[in-house]
Amino acid sequence: MARLVESEQVEFVDESAITCDLVQAMASDAMVVNAARVSHDRDLGNFISSDEELTDKDRRLIGFLMENRHGTPFEHNAFTFLVSAPIAVVREHHRHRIGHAYNEVSGRYTKLAPRFFVPGLVRMDSADKNKYAFTYASDPLADEVRDHLATACANAYQDYERLLDLGVKREVARGVLPVYTMTRYYWTCNARSLMHFLSLRLQQDAMEEIRIVARHAYSALRDLMPTTYLAFSASGWTAP
Amino acid sequence: MARLVESEQVEFVDESAITCDLVQAMASDAMVVNAARVSHDRDLGNFISSDEELTDKDRRLIGFLMENRHGTPFEHNAFTFLVSAPIAVVREHHRHRIGHAYNEVSGRYTKLAPRFFVPGLVRMDSADKNKYAFTYASDPLADEVRDHLATACANAYQDYERLLDLGVKREVARGVLPVYTMTRYYWTCNARSLMHFLSLRLQQDAMEEIRIVARHAYSALRDLMPTTYLAFSASGWTAP
Amino acid sequence: MARLVESEQVEFVDESAITCDLVQAMASDAMVVNAARVSHDRDLGNFISSDEELTDKDRRLIGFLMENRHGTPFEHNAFTFLVSAPIAVVREHHRHRIGHAYNEVSGRYTKLAPRFFVPGLVRMDSADKNKYAFTYASDPLADEVRDHLATACANAYQDYERLLDLGVKREVARGVLPVYTMTRYYWTCNARSLMHFLSLRLQQDAMEEIRIVARHAYSALRDLMPTTYLAFSASGWTAP
Amino acid sequence: MARLVESEQVEFVDESAITCDLVQAMASDAMVVNAARVSHDRDLGNFISSDEELTDKDRRLIGFLMENRHGTPFEHNAFTFLVSAPIAVVREHHRHRIGHAYNEVSGRYTKLAPRFFVPGLVRMDSADKNKYAFTYASDPLADEVRDHLATACANAYQDYERLLDLGVKREVARGVLPVYTMTRYYWTCNARSLMHFLSLRLQQDAMEEIRIVARHAYSALRDLMPTTYLAFSASGWTAP
Repeated sequence: MARLVESEQVEFVDESAITCDLVQAMASDAMVVNAARVSHDRDLGNFISSDEELTDKDRRLIGFLMENRHGTPFEHNAFTFLVSAPIAVVREHHRHRIGHAYNEVSGRYTKLAPRFFVPGLVRMDSADKNKYAFTYASDPLADEVRDHLATACANAYQDYERLLDLGVKREVARGVLPVYTMTRYYWTCNARSLMHFLSLRLQQDAMEEIRIVARHAYSALRDLMPTTYLAFSASGWTAP
Repeated sequence: MARLVESEQVEFVDESAITCDLVQAMASDAMVVNAARVSHDRDLGNFISSDEELTDKDRRLIGFLMENRHGTPFEHNAFTFLVSAPIAVVREHHRHRIGHAYNEVSGRYTKLAPRFFVPGLVRMDSADKNKYAFTYASDPLADEVRDHLATACANAYQDYERLLDLGVKREVARGVLPVYTMTRYYWTCNARSLMHFLSLRLQQDAMEEIRIVARHAYSALRDLMPTTYLAFSASGWTAP
Repeated sequence: MARLVESEQVEFVDESAITCDLVQAMASDAMVVNAARVSHDRDLGNFISSDEELTDKDRRLIGFLMENRHGTPFEHNAFTFLVSAPIAVVREHHRHRIGHAYNEVSGRYTKLAPRFFVPGLVRMDSADKNKYAFTYASDPLADEVRDHLATACANAYQDYERLLDLGVKREVARGVLPVYTMTRYYWTCNARSLMHFLSLRLQQDAMEEIRIVARHAYSALRDLMPTTYLAFSASGWTAP
Repeated sequence: MARLVESEQVEFVDESAITCDLVQAMASDAMVVNAARVSHDRDLGNFISSDEELTDKDRRLIGFLMENRHGTPFEHNAFTFLVSAPIAVVREHHRHRIGHAYNEVSGRYTKLAPRFFVPGLVRMDSADKNKYAFTYASDPLADEVRDHLATACANAYQDYERLLDLGVKREVARGVLPVYTMTRYYWTCNARSLMHFLSLRLQQDAMEEIRIVARHAYSALRDLMPTTYLAFSASGWTAP
């Protein structure tokens, strides 16, 4: 049969390809302070601008809000990220519903790219079966696992293309693609919903791959809202 | 008894004091286009930047999203407003829950200001009792109504101060303050939640005072996301 | 002028009239267990029915979920309450957005009832100005305050009826009604959103009147989901 | 190498295995009526009980709410379903965030079952490439496609078990499993969020597999809230 669908070169990527790049943001500690202060300060006499240095009093206010779980002042801001991650990660990520918006590459509307996640560090079962514990595989076992994963993904992509060649609709053909297929999505959240995400996904028992996404997002919080970041870190990642 | 609480001059304001000022925004039609296009364009080859002019194709895409109620691409943005309005308006406004954040002056934490709404245009019952129909009162009836409203509010504030003088906690004393007491709050939303708000609050049967807030917010949408604004207007204000 | 609007007898109510009655519920600890267990038990072999007694293992699972803030298993249930409370309480209550639904008597669509909250116990400022501290007024001061509140509310209602008499639309006339006007609303939530509400509104620094609502709702949780209730109480009211 | 992981018999299922069974519900048209009526009827004099027959007036009220997109009265109810579907469907389903709760089998916590979706009816590209159009494959092409899908899935499961045998953690090994792997989850929503889901997922351009889930849920709405169902259907599936 004449090949209708162009066969593409399969690519394997490791942890370094799991990215979460800040696309745009509207975020400042100053706005947290203003939003909190509006409840006490009916004339907004102590309104501060976003480029102003925070005073010690401002910083203490943010600490107080965090400790006492007054969450709403942290909602007047927004971060948009472009994330690259395997489908397995997206499945966890998209469980975060409130204050999170997503738009992702669709296997219905486009041919998915032949790009698969193959971990550089391979997590193996540890003796401690009940907890989220693991050891990393050493070579040559790690290599064997990676080869196995890569081959399985490559085979799946070949099957995918074969089905497309037969004229099967993309949304059906992609049924064979594995959850380590890389995908891409825009993600918008605010500091409060971000901190809730981080409180779960920075933890040591979170899945390694989503922790990579979390650490990227965490650093955006640090850069744009340093006082909020410090207060959140000091709280042991307890979201307000 | 010696007066402990300083008596304040009561102020009456009309429709012009109902304001909704844009404090900050992260909003562009370009981001709608990019967020929508990520589903089709796995390599983001057609990514556009926020200062780029939209092409006709981009504009048609936004129209398509609006018509077909694909709402998520309109969520990657944020608007923060500072609103001044009577409590009666806030009560309606805060019913909007999803994608809306609020922080308001608190009658528990501060003495509320002696500022009351007295409408310039007084809505009277019309013969058509069942529908949201009204006529505006003419003078001298309008004046009589306004006097009445103003006096009632001034009396309530006097009662409020009297109770504070007696040492009653603010949160109890404010129990006498009327729902035409002016208040102030920060409001953050995204274009999708904003359009949902507008779809209900721009309508002719929405309460006049909240329509003022809605019109202010509508103009922010127009200024920052003109293509989205046009598509939304063309849809008869049907939120995606 | 001939009176068009029938004048109604004003009624004053105290804390005992702040109610939160369970109207309907679909809630069981068993469903929490099943929802949590679906992640581990692919064949639902350990599915339990809602009238079954929980085992110790089931109870420990609920404790584990609460401690580790796995919140979603607590969302597969619903409680509907009918609440009576002053507007001041509703304003706080309706700030709870996610997982909460409300429908309230509308001052636009009906003449509001002449029913006002006058606290039996009157909270007075304490020397400790900065914290949420108070003392209760003793008689005769308490009586004086109550008289004052009652008179202010009665006067406001008289003004309201007077304005209605003049033909002013209800939504404008109600502008004079105080935030201690009693109102009524349906409230639906799930155990997770309820616990989040309780975590803030059972606290000692929550406003007394909303704590009454919270305590009523808390007892519904206790009656219908006793294991969840115990685990939540043991956590110090930290919502998962 | 000694096999540590027990090899399981692979099973292939078709459309009939995509199910959405009602597990529990608290739902009635009467509650919609009551919730809507509370805004007009301050004394709840027209409160109806859930087993009462609706009057024509009640039915017209529900029609009015639907037409005018008054959504909140439809939120005082809840439906819990147990859904079986391929991962590809879950990915679409879980994009529905507001008013939807989910708990799913986890590939981190359990070995996933060797159960794969292979469609009985195979959708093929139609000449009309731009629209969501398709034809069904006839035999022998349909058989060839099904064989292909089944073989690919079986191979992936063999790879999965092989990786588990090597001691790879479940969350990594499952990386090779395809998105046509069957999964299972609890889903709780209310009539409003359900109708929003249906408005998108009953449509002819929705993916066939999720339409099966939607039709099951639609019939639950029909059985428990027949007047709401009729009004929603009459509106052309426009969610309020």
